[in-house]
Amino acid sequence: MQKIQINGAQSLIQTLVNCDVDVCFGNPGTSEMHFVAALDSAPTMRSVLCLFEGVATGAADGYGRLSGKPAATLLHLGPGLANGLANLHNARRANTPIVNIVGDHATYHLQYDALLTSDIVGFARPVSSWIHESKSAKTVAADTARAVQAARSAPGCISTLILPADTAWDEAERPADPLPHRGPEPVSAAAVEAAAALLRNGKKTALILRANALYGAGLEAAGRVQAASGARLLCDTFAPHTELGAGRVPVERIPYFAEQIVSFLEGTEQIILVGSKPPVSFFAYPGKSSWCTPKGCHLSYLAHPHEDACGALAALADTLGAPPQAAKRVPLQLPDMPSGNLTPLAIAQVMANLTPEQAIFADESATSGLALLSTMATGRPHTHLPLTGGSIGDGLPVAVGAAIAAPNRKVVCPHGDGGAAYTMQALWTMARENLDITVVIYANRSYGILNIELQRVGVQETGQKALSMLDLHNPEMNWTKIAQGMGVEASRATTAEEFADLYRSAMQQRGPRLIEAMI
Amino acid sequence: MQKIQINGAQSLIQTLVNCDVDVCFGNPGTSEMHFVAALDSAPTMRSVLCLFEGVATGAADGYGRLSGKPAATLLHLGPGLANGLANLHNARRANTPIVNIVGDHATYHLQYDALLTSDIVGFARPVSSWIHESKSAKTVAADTARAVQAARSAPGCISTLILPADTAWDEAERPADPLPHRGPEPVSAAAVEAAAALLRNGKKTALILRANALYGAGLEAAGRVQAASGARLLCDTFAPHTELGAGRVPVERIPYFAEQIVSFLEGTEQIILVGSKPPVSFFAYPGKSSWCTPKGCHLSYLAHPHEDACGALAALADTLGAPPQAAKRVPLQLPDMPSGNLTPLAIAQVMANLTPEQAIFADESATSGLALLSTMATGRPHTHLPLTGGSIGDGLPVAVGAAIAAPNRKVVCPHGDGGAAYTMQALWTMARENLDITVVIYANRSYGILNIELQRVGVQETGQKALSMLDLHNPEMNWTKIAQGMGVEASRATTAEEFADLYRSAMQQRGPRLIEAMI
Repeated sequence: MQKIQINGAQSLIQTLVNCDVDVCFGNPGTSEMHFVAALDSAPTMRSVLCLFEGVATGAADGYGRLSGKPAATLLHLGPGLANGLANLHNARRANTPIVNIVGDHATYHLQYDALLTSDIVGFARPVSSWIHESKSAKTVAADTARAVQAARSAPGCISTLILPADTAWDEAERPADPLPHRGPEPVSAAAVEAAAALLRNGKKTALILRANALYGAGLEAAGRVQAASGARLLCDTFAPHTELGAGRVPVERIPYFAEQIVSFLEGTEQIILVGSKPPVSFFAYPGKSSWCTPKGCHLSYLAHPHEDACGALAALADTLGAPPQAAKRVPLQLPDMPSGNLTPLAIAQVMANLTPEQAIFADESATSGLALLSTMATGRPHTHLPLTGGSIGDGLPVAVGAAIAAPNRKVVCPHGDGGAAYTMQALWTMARENLDITVVIYANRSYGILNIELQRVGVQETGQKALSMLDLHNPEMNWTKIAQGMGVEASRATTAEEFADLYRSAMQQRGPRLIEAMI
Repeated sequence: MQKIQINGAQSLIQTLVNCDVDVCFGNPGTSEMHFVAALDSAPTMRSVLCLFEGVATGAADGYGRLSGKPAATLLHLGPGLANGLANLHNARRANTPIVNIVGDHATYHLQYDALLTSDIVGFARPVSSWIHESKSAKTVAADTARAVQAARSAPGCISTLILPADTAWDEAERPADPLPHRGPEPVSAAAVEAAAALLRNGKKTALILRANALYGAGLEAAGRVQAASGARLLCDTFAPHTELGAGRVPVERIPYFAEQIVSFLEGTEQIILVGSKPPVSFFAYPGKSSWCTPKGCHLSYLAHPHEDACGALAALADTLGAPPQAAKRVPLQLPDMPSGNLTPLAIAQVMANLTPEQAIFADESATSGLALLSTMATGRPHTHLPLTGGSIGDGLPVAVGAAIAAPNRKVVCPHGDGGAAYTMQALWTMARENLDITVVIYANRSYGILNIELQRVGVQETGQKALSMLDLHNPEMNWTKIAQGMGVEASRATTAEEFADLYRSAMQQRGPRLIEAMI
């Protein structure tokens, strides 16, 4: 047999690198062995092993959200993809670009319905904007370039490319060049004029910002619009990527619960959506409205999610004759250091005092997060990546992805214990890659939100069996041991002072640390 | 507002109990709070909290495989179901009956596309034989009875019932009575006659058994057929539920790799399928055949998977004029106790010596499992539940479900470390429910099978990056600490003697234990 010049697997990896996709989070199996072997054919491809696919997809979410460009995942047939779906759901809600590479049985093997055969396209469909199954090694390079192009389409999409094993080992074409991206579409002059007219009519107006309107030039442009118009600047509770803290243009965060949103928006006469959607309740509650736009309030779009919110805001600011700079800036206001009981507020106060500038918060602090958000609001400038799709277990993986995207920035991962139990395998990857992440587990031994929601949904009688389903005290997880078992340095804090000592030392070192905060 | 007599959630739980579904493995969220509250309305419903949905679905797999009746799962919208899909894939391959209850947003809330909204039907389709979304509380009871009926249809199916939150809290109809099951269909007399004719024609014949042909009366009938005909009795590598060990009718297990299967079946002139499918390779390999039936071998069906394999074998034995008892029985042959190095064989020798009768093996021992199967083959009588769909991370959850289905039997869970990392959260449920399970982790710090497969799929050059994707040494997981962190008593064995001491003590106590075997 003549030696193959390049096989499909090599054409995949080299095309990914050509298309500027040079990080791969994966957990491969037999059907992906040629892809694994091909990793060494592309020296700049970084391959990160994850012990569970939900870690891989969540890491790709964090990487893509922070860097704006896709990572690849490498997943083992349908069940491997299935294990990654929940965090792909979160990524879809964040509009994170991701390229999933899913291995499959060889094309000629599928007819036998061997045990690992499944409907991979079916698994992929609910989370993917683009799905394709290559049928020949000869098309893998071209298909890969198309998958990357699709992922980079505005506002950021999930591509799933399914590669049967024989497309990996058969002879392939040369690697493909990148295809042009379909980036965010410019907003029409008419849309800008219409928004300007609204902002000049004297009515109480709020802009709800999202995507690139919440950081960098977009946020600055929003600040100019605010200065010229006096409009409120708002963002979703779970805006995927925000720049917060001192010196930034202040943006008010829409609260979580429906009745809080209604009260928060009371009196608003006009809402202008900038890459966002109308505010709605996260869940439905009996007798409460899901729709949270005030009655009679005028709703309009400056930019749809696939459009260029940043450019639209700059044009709007110019149209309004706005000053060159925002009028309002967040002041630096650090709280006193706490003492005594370890509470979510005390944790927030320590973090605000001791976290260095430009840290990245991969935040799944859940019910403990309110104190954190309000306290960190006037802390040092930082980036905030929250849980975007409501599917818990994204925070630890997002921290992995963010740390790989920004190796010179400290990553802080405040995490509820219930959610952390979902993807605790991420700790191992943090240790393996020596990522500069400090994980703080809020150890309240509870699905805290559910104790609140149980009342809110109108449950009238609660028995012992029901309450036990929300409670994690029996047995109590020991996160210090779990983290040590995964190779991560870990310790437990029971007072504010102990927490401050541990957090200070974590901020001063590099590498992964876990602090179990006994709140 | 008038007090509701019974709401949809209560009608669900009470209908499940009416239909003999009285165990629920779950991880509920806000949209399921009424279902949680309703648990206390049915005293005989046992509700088991799992820290990750893959544990819940895997536990339902173990429960259903052992007991033959479905457990329910309670899952939180699309992402909750998604987290459970991989083990539902395994359960589908085992023909395990399961009733998934998946909460959703209230019917009127779905239009707003709130962040947790997803295509639940899409997620469910690849693993479910039956899917339905209730649109009103009034139909929940009837829909639940239909879901249970569908799950209990032969050969055992997965039902997914999607319940919007308002179908839980609105007023409902009275609980429904069970519907008749469509059990296994009887095999026609013609099919029995045809098989009898084959068994009389003097050709070398093998029966491949599955489902209820591999335990109880079915296995006994197969033994009679063997006695009358001299045919080989075979089963799939990953037959879902087998009864093994001394006193049982011996059944040869078809090996894993394609070329081994071909050699194993060489000379076979006739294969009769009894609830099974023709043997094929698990994966495809370049240049190797996927189809493993010998050339010219005659293939026929005595019973299809939905048909009554047990009854067909009994009729076949009678038609053949078989003796009332099998001619062959597995003898009890216990190996010597090992000493020195701790190897998979030494572990198997200890297990064969010290495991009590009627133990259940929830076996995901992967590459370490060959020694176990061959050594335990002549051990004390036991039940074997292996990984059926090739998606690793089912063993620990299956052990949970088996222990709940059979509380008076010892459950042993021999597990590869790579697979155990997938669903390690199951350890917490073992502790919480004080289940009588002994977990043995084969700590080889490797995806052992992939090191074998890398060569077999024809990879010619393997670089450092590729090898690192199969290796779990950096960092080394400490399973003793992880298990202790989850509330399970755990210790490490480095020699055969240490392992024997720990295993002996585990067999003599009740409750969960983990032994980390440093092989």
